[in-house]
Amino acid sequence: MRIEDLPTPALIADAGALEHNIAAMAAVLPGTRCRPHVKAHKCTAIARRQADAGHRAFTCATIREMEGMAAAGLGEDLLLANEVLDARRLGALVDAGARVTVAVDSGETISAAADGGVREVLIDVNVGLPRCGCAPEDAGRLADAARARGLFVRGVMGYEGHAVGLPDRELRASITRESMERLAAAHAAVGGDVISAGGTGTYDLNTVATEIQAGSYVLLDDAYDALGLPFRRGLGIVATVISVSNEHAVADAGLKAMGMDHGNPTIDRGHVVWFVSDEHLSFAPAEPVRAGDRVTIRPAHIDPTIAYHERIHLVRDGEVLDTWPVDLRGW
Amino acid sequence: MRIEDLPTPALIADAGALEHNIAAMAAVLPGTRCRPHVKAHKCTAIARRQADAGHRAFTCATIREMEGMAAAGLGEDLLLANEVLDARRLGALVDAGARVTVAVDSGETISAAADGGVREVLIDVNVGLPRCGCAPEDAGRLADAARARGLFVRGVMGYEGHAVGLPDRELRASITRESMERLAAAHAAVGGDVISAGGTGTYDLNTVATEIQAGSYVLLDDAYDALGLPFRRGLGIVATVISVSNEHAVADAGLKAMGMDHGNPTIDRGHVVWFVSDEHLSFAPAEPVRAGDRVTIRPAHIDPTIAYHERIHLVRDGEVLDTWPVDLRGW
Repeated sequence: MRIEDLPTPALIADAGALEHNIAAMAAVLPGTRCRPHVKAHKCTAIARRQADAGHRAFTCATIREMEGMAAAGLGEDLLLANEVLDARRLGALVDAGARVTVAVDSGETISAAADGGVREVLIDVNVGLPRCGCAPEDAGRLADAARARGLFVRGVMGYEGHAVGLPDRELRASITRESMERLAAAHAAVGGDVISAGGTGTYDLNTVATEIQAGSYVLLDDAYDALGLPFRRGLGIVATVISVSNEHAVADAGLKAMGMDHGNPTIDRGHVVWFVSDEHLSFAPAEPVRAGDRVTIRPAHIDPTIAYHERIHLVRDGEVLDTWPVDLRGW
Repeated sequence: MRIEDLPTPALIADAGALEHNIAAMAAVLPGTRCRPHVKAHKCTAIARRQADAGHRAFTCATIREMEGMAAAGLGEDLLLANEVLDARRLGALVDAGARVTVAVDSGETISAAADGGVREVLIDVNVGLPRCGCAPEDAGRLADAARARGLFVRGVMGYEGHAVGLPDRELRASITRESMERLAAAHAAVGGDVISAGGTGTYDLNTVATEIQAGSYVLLDDAYDALGLPFRRGLGIVATVISVSNEHAVADAGLKAMGMDHGNPTIDRGHVVWFVSDEHLSFAPAEPVRAGDRVTIRPAHIDPTIAYHERIHLVRDGEVLDTWPVDLRGW
């Protein structure tokens, strides 16, 4: 099948970019040095390619992602890098043979893990991003509390999300360093083999983490692309031009086909995006277009874009090589 | 089941608001005077309630919505208020007994309708919003072209989307009036019984349209709520507080649970939203919260929010009355 034959809007992944990105990461961070985050793509077929490149341990953001990975036979070492107050579904995965580790940052989340049947945890440490994680000075106490509940504490995690997107590489490096000093101090009090941290923007700057939780590198966001990383943008939405007037044209992909938190998408061939509606994108054509023409839209943020789609088409040179379900959506 | 028992994030619709909104619309625009737009809710169970209130004709934005409505037995009079270049799936619906009308605004879309087996069309007219629709002066010519292809032209449509959200009611009314003058002129050249237009923000201002394509009124967006309309906000996302620190807390609903094109959501009890990540919402609590507490998030824009969810829970006074699949998602 050719791209032109896909019903639109169609989410496409460029096979060349995907292969390049997976290979580039595996070359710098082989095996368990990278624990790919599946939240970016929510697709076990892509996770399997990452596993084939040597990464057998994965990071997830939701219980559904954990379940889907285990069901796909990729449950060798799954980390839920997020807090949950009800871990029973995770306990069921443990019972079914998956290796499950969950982040904890409070007495409540430790209790939930133990009560739910999870056996292994990481102490989640706030290293500067105002999101989850305990204060670094509380990490040792929480590790003791976890052990007192019979949990095995594998180590710590701490995401420097306030650093990963900074355009200035030196600043990104220095904030990563500061963040990892906090995480290392917490690790000294916690113990364990694992220091899990990092993301696509700091994959080669974070030298403290034993494993990097990079996800976006597989198909890359606009913001990451601006950092000059050795990864390529590979995600697009193929849309059909459905209406043309004197000054503008309209394509059939809208707010329900792309995440908008990073702003408007861009569009190929120099066309200029005007605005996005539920199922439309209005744009000023850079060259004449006709109803029925195809355009390719580049969403600014891949994660919330992919989460809208049921499937992703792998393409190369206009040919559709494969069609993969986005099978880790929902919760 | 109680709301507290729902796994989070959970999309909820307040039964009282939903019933009020459907009844309020049906009182002002009974029967075919309102052609509810299902794109807002993407849920045939809600459409069935609208049908029970007397609206048997519906508006859709995608072919999938048309197919889902027909499959749910709600295919008495379905309008695809959007242009398509491949109408074969619509033709299949006609063959299966649904009444299908599609918007056309060009020779290409007329050909697609005729070639695909659709029998009825509306001429879509640009009344001021830079999106789909032909120039008003082209409408008569296109109607002739459609008839020459054997299509039955039911009339015109033209969406005053540039008016529906204007806060000033007088301005909203005057721009609606101007827009409808254009549509009426086009209608004079086209003929037919149908003048389809309007939305939630102009449902009682648009006196030219024979039918109003209102959708958002069922659960209401923030922007519409600010207009002082007689509809109530009824959509929420129940989330669990998963992490608490000195200055902020984190709930487990993020970018993949809500549309962000209208900006940040709000949150109940005076909590202040800081920022939204893929699966997290960081906020400053107005009162102390604990891990495990529930909060209710109000997304700013309901349409792209609902499109992320597999199901919607109907609730009243904390009780979950029903759980409906969001069965019109995708394309």
